[in-house]
Amino acid sequence: MTIDELETPAVLVDLDVMERNLARLASYTRKHSLTLRPHTKTHKIPELARRQIESGAKGITVAKPGEARVMAEGGLRDIMIAYPLVTEAKARVAAELARDSAICVSMDSVEALDVLSQAGLAAGRRIGALVEIDVGFHRCGVDSPEQALSLARHAAGLSGLEFRGLMFYPGQLGKLPDEQTAGIADVNRCLTAHYEAFQNAGVEIPVVSGGSTATAYRSHEFAGVNEIRPGMYIFNDRNLVSLGACSLEDCALHVMVTVVSTAVPGRTIVDGGSKTFSSDRSKGEKVTYGLIREDSQTDFIALSEEHGHLDTTHSDRSFQIGERLHILPNHVCVTVNMHDQIYGVRGNTVEKVWQVKARGKVQ
Amino acid sequence: MTIDELETPAVLVDLDVMERNLARLASYTRKHSLTLRPHTKTHKIPELARRQIESGAKGITVAKPGEARVMAEGGLRDIMIAYPLVTEAKARVAAELARDSAICVSMDSVEALDVLSQAGLAAGRRIGALVEIDVGFHRCGVDSPEQALSLARHAAGLSGLEFRGLMFYPGQLGKLPDEQTAGIADVNRCLTAHYEAFQNAGVEIPVVSGGSTATAYRSHEFAGVNEIRPGMYIFNDRNLVSLGACSLEDCALHVMVTVVSTAVPGRTIVDGGSKTFSSDRSKGEKVTYGLIREDSQTDFIALSEEHGHLDTTHSDRSFQIGERLHILPNHVCVTVNMHDQIYGVRGNTVEKVWQVKARGKVQ
Repeated sequence: MTIDELETPAVLVDLDVMERNLARLASYTRKHSLTLRPHTKTHKIPELARRQIESGAKGITVAKPGEARVMAEGGLRDIMIAYPLVTEAKARVAAELARDSAICVSMDSVEALDVLSQAGLAAGRRIGALVEIDVGFHRCGVDSPEQALSLARHAAGLSGLEFRGLMFYPGQLGKLPDEQTAGIADVNRCLTAHYEAFQNAGVEIPVVSGGSTATAYRSHEFAGVNEIRPGMYIFNDRNLVSLGACSLEDCALHVMVTVVSTAVPGRTIVDGGSKTFSSDRSKGEKVTYGLIREDSQTDFIALSEEHGHLDTTHSDRSFQIGERLHILPNHVCVTVNMHDQIYGVRGNTVEKVWQVKARGKVQ
Repeated sequence: MTIDELETPAVLVDLDVMERNLARLASYTRKHSLTLRPHTKTHKIPELARRQIESGAKGITVAKPGEARVMAEGGLRDIMIAYPLVTEAKARVAAELARDSAICVSMDSVEALDVLSQAGLAAGRRIGALVEIDVGFHRCGVDSPEQALSLARHAAGLSGLEFRGLMFYPGQLGKLPDEQTAGIADVNRCLTAHYEAFQNAGVEIPVVSGGSTATAYRSHEFAGVNEIRPGMYIFNDRNLVSLGACSLEDCALHVMVTVVSTAVPGRTIVDGGSKTFSSDRSKGEKVTYGLIREDSQTDFIALSEEHGHLDTTHSDRSFQIGERLHILPNHVCVTVNMHDQIYGVRGNTVEKVWQVKARGKVQ
């Protein structure tokens, strides 16, 4: 099958670029002796998770127990649920999966530790527990080394789980340079304070899990980090290009759309909107919704649910009804999440049709 | 089953409110002799489309042929695809469905008319064709009465389809009053110019299809409109409240979430983010991502993919880990579209579990 035979909108992954992205980060993590545990929220496809393992990752990361279940059913045997589970039902899923797979979970509260411990006990399993610390993103994560130590000690007193170490998400580093208020040095001051408190207390920290795609190739600059959880590096996207984290040539995923209307002067309408791309915005002052590979002078200025509004007034190019365009999305994770299937292509040949099996597993 | 037994995030529809919304608009359209053809993009659930028919709608509207197929399989027999179909494959789906259902399609180009005609001919069916006109939203729709008339005449010369009338989407009226540059009077000037041109040419316009939820109860003010296609009125949402198109009491759908982290001072994190709510923003200057029913002083200030970031610094309320909150989404259509199933509830009882069957039918 060729891409010409696909209806649009269709999400196409350039396999050559994807494979290069996988190999390069695996090589970097090997060189720096970092454990690679990719976040599979970006693709939600077990086969791609297995590809990541084959190319050098030790395990994977997911956000929800439902995603963990899909990945375990797909043969993944080492899974971190990087999300606080605070209900019995969710902790029970983690414990059930721990029968066949190594499962660890991050959290920042006594409540989450207690729930996980009970589930682990009931299933006769020990689940790994990582204490999440806030290194400046101010989302989840305890606020001080004392609190982290207190949770680690609480974990040590519980059955059904095992304190595995610390995890953090440096989301504040995924901003444009002029919007950043802190850098890796600030994160390191925070991390080092934790290491000192734990050392003084005689508590070992086997794993320090950090990282994201924005800082993936600077992971060795983070003090004491021995594991990273980047997600987007497999595909990359427009916002990562804006951050300088990759180049346009590193972007493996585009959405192929068709021009459906040119009736309004200065506008071209394509058959993908917020239900195809998501409504995630571009970084920076001028907000647009994707980069059009065929014409950089045409701006993707607005989204309806099923219409993409292109402004052609600054371009010499005119578009024809029925013409196909390839658009680089702002944020690849939420774009893939809109689709039941995506396609792996090499040149014009469709080599793979992947079901996005963990899509919609919001619980 | 009660809602306490559901895991979160879970989309809950208050059946009493939904039924009131359905009855009220049906009553209004009866009073004004308007054909009601609800846009089912809001719910994508055949059972709810049938409920709309039972409560007085003549037919339904969809955006894509894939959605039309799901609705036809669900027993819907009068379907408008309010979207220009410009590929053979998509027109073929419309023509196939026309064997058992009345199908009409809107378009604004000769290309779309020709594609549809060929598909209709091949299937031995006549598909209804509506010419879309631009009344000020500047998305799709021809630019002048002359162009509309030209397309109507082109349609009259084709087999496999039948000119059914005009359709428009007055999206520019779905803005906050101080952002609006035009009103219904401007739309009416545009509509009237079309009616005159068609009358002078002796071409009848059986259907004039307009309307949206934002202007649903003002539909009788639109000159010559005899059909409306509102979608959101079944559930309503926060942005419609901001527009003054409904009240908070008319909002049938909330997302039930659980507090998963309170570790960061001034923040409460819930288990729904952009993959639960979509990243559609609120209208107006201060952008937030939903209204928290339990506390209007707490702001939903940011979204990660699976985390909702609540700012509690202006509230006296503090939230506990494990506590459940109910959040009114900004835009209900894109929220429902994130979910494989949603729940119909009365009080605390879950009466219905609906699969969102047309979700993901982007083609």
